[in-house]
Amino acid sequence: MTPRRFALTPGEPAGIGPDLCLLLAGQPHPHPLIAVASLDLLVQRAAQLNLSVRLLPVTPDSWPDEPAPAGSLYVWDTPLRTPATPGRLDRANAAYVLETLTRAGQGCLDGHFAGMITAPVHKGVINEAGIAFSGHTEFLAELTGTEQVVMMLATRGLRVALVTTHLPLKDVASAITAERLSRVARILHADLRDKFGIARPRILVCGLNPHAGESGHLGREEIEVIEPALETLRQEGLDLIGPLPADTLFTPKYLEHCDAVLAMYHDQGLPVLKYKGFGAAVNVTLGLPIVRTSVDHGTALDLAATGKVDTGSLAVALETAYEMTGRHP
Amino acid sequence: MTPRRFALTPGEPAGIGPDLCLLLAGQPHPHPLIAVASLDLLVQRAAQLNLSVRLLPVTPDSWPDEPAPAGSLYVWDTPLRTPATPGRLDRANAAYVLETLTRAGQGCLDGHFAGMITAPVHKGVINEAGIAFSGHTEFLAELTGTEQVVMMLATRGLRVALVTTHLPLKDVASAITAERLSRVARILHADLRDKFGIARPRILVCGLNPHAGESGHLGREEIEVIEPALETLRQEGLDLIGPLPADTLFTPKYLEHCDAVLAMYHDQGLPVLKYKGFGAAVNVTLGLPIVRTSVDHGTALDLAATGKVDTGSLAVALETAYEMTGRHP
Repeated sequence: MTPRRFALTPGEPAGIGPDLCLLLAGQPHPHPLIAVASLDLLVQRAAQLNLSVRLLPVTPDSWPDEPAPAGSLYVWDTPLRTPATPGRLDRANAAYVLETLTRAGQGCLDGHFAGMITAPVHKGVINEAGIAFSGHTEFLAELTGTEQVVMMLATRGLRVALVTTHLPLKDVASAITAERLSRVARILHADLRDKFGIARPRILVCGLNPHAGESGHLGREEIEVIEPALETLRQEGLDLIGPLPADTLFTPKYLEHCDAVLAMYHDQGLPVLKYKGFGAAVNVTLGLPIVRTSVDHGTALDLAATGKVDTGSLAVALETAYEMTGRHP
Repeated sequence: MTPRRFALTPGEPAGIGPDLCLLLAGQPHPHPLIAVASLDLLVQRAAQLNLSVRLLPVTPDSWPDEPAPAGSLYVWDTPLRTPATPGRLDRANAAYVLETLTRAGQGCLDGHFAGMITAPVHKGVINEAGIAFSGHTEFLAELTGTEQVVMMLATRGLRVALVTTHLPLKDVASAITAERLSRVARILHADLRDKFGIARPRILVCGLNPHAGESGHLGREEIEVIEPALETLRQEGLDLIGPLPADTLFTPKYLEHCDAVLAMYHDQGLPVLKYKGFGAAVNVTLGLPIVRTSVDHGTALDLAATGKVDTGSLAVALETAYEMTGRHP
């Protein structure tokens, strides 16, 4: 039987990740939640926040099977390399941050965790430490030997997956190939089915061009690339609607009857998602052999240790991880 | 004194435009509203819809100064070239459609109307009739001798203007020049001030690339083109915030304190606008010497004469025209 415990990585120690984990510990949780983090860091941050949280050290030899009581948090102690000061990045702790991710990710692969939930890391400081790092997603893809992953953002009532992600806009059109679109759509379909338990996922697909190309008048990629690719995928059994104009797709008429939207690029799909789900959106990596969800915000260095943080996104990241492991309470 | 009357063009006679105008006549209006349309067409469509609307013919010799009573509609009779059948396009009426636009537009220029509100036309059938026509906006720009116009969509609580509009996505990045961005921003600023009565309009500007280029890692247009252009515009007195990442800009933190968003391209700005304003969004042409607003939907040929149409967008188009002429009730 798969364990019911989840790993939680607070990420950058100078950011708000530790604060969010401590704040979250104030409420009861349906499953054991294990912060993979420095115990010293959490003790110190709790004091800075004037929060009374009972920290319960655990190790692979003593995994808990029951949730921690409200007001307490399980911690798999992972020592900092140097003490952390809220708001002040220190490259000396880059290796610490990556160790927490490796422990959580490997723990999922090894069956210790049903999934992992990540708070934000700071890419810049890890790279400054001489470690090539382009983000959680790529790190976990490599750790798990996964060739293609898909970035999906979700909030209550809407999921948006992306065919391309962090590309300059000028490179987007040429990156939309039938091959890439097909790989992404297949992963989205498979994960909606296998991880979200949707028997026959219905996916709305955006066009690339305004008005989905308006029959070729505003671009030919829909006719030459997207429509033929979707047709092939439909023959494989995928339920795909589109390509649809992105500006009319995000309306109740379409959204009511769909399980996810597949957008061609970052700023086509995410503004609506974040508008709708402000403060309560979550980033999900599809295509991995493990379940991983993340907050959709950054390290917010200036807010660390101030208490002025909103746990909304982390709460949805937890909910979504539970949902993806079939254990939504 | 500027007249308080407005021209309303029902557009394509086989579409839902005539229906919308007739439905709208059922309610009282604060200003005289004059449909520039075929009287026969409106009589026939009212019968098909089983609507009792009293049609009141008017001419430039007999402009009304008071609103028509609820249940009636002023009509500046502009004869069809051939009878119209709901749902069936006929290129013989293309010249009719353009005549209604010319009458309304010229009437604004001549001071007969304070503004014009347009229902949808069908570009395809006008072009099939051998008349080069790429849309209301371009037609009115030519009629009024305007070099540069700006497309803005608005709904209650949000306005989004576009630097580029109906371009294939692959051509967007190279179309974002300092010159174009500056011309568009100046028009947006001037019209928000002069037509919307906002003394010092505050405009949020989107980046072109995801995360607004992330300091050059995801594209260099922000650094090389957008930021220098905005800096110059600020020195001219424009209040511009950005370039901001489009996916976090559309959140209350930013939107609360702005009068309009300037998006770099169609699908970056309009999905949120139409999501927020579904059924009640309006298209405004800025930069013209006249006031022109429009519904944001198409001719919906299949719904003509069925009665299954929503006047929400036309109602907001009217409200916005009143607002732009300083006469919002």
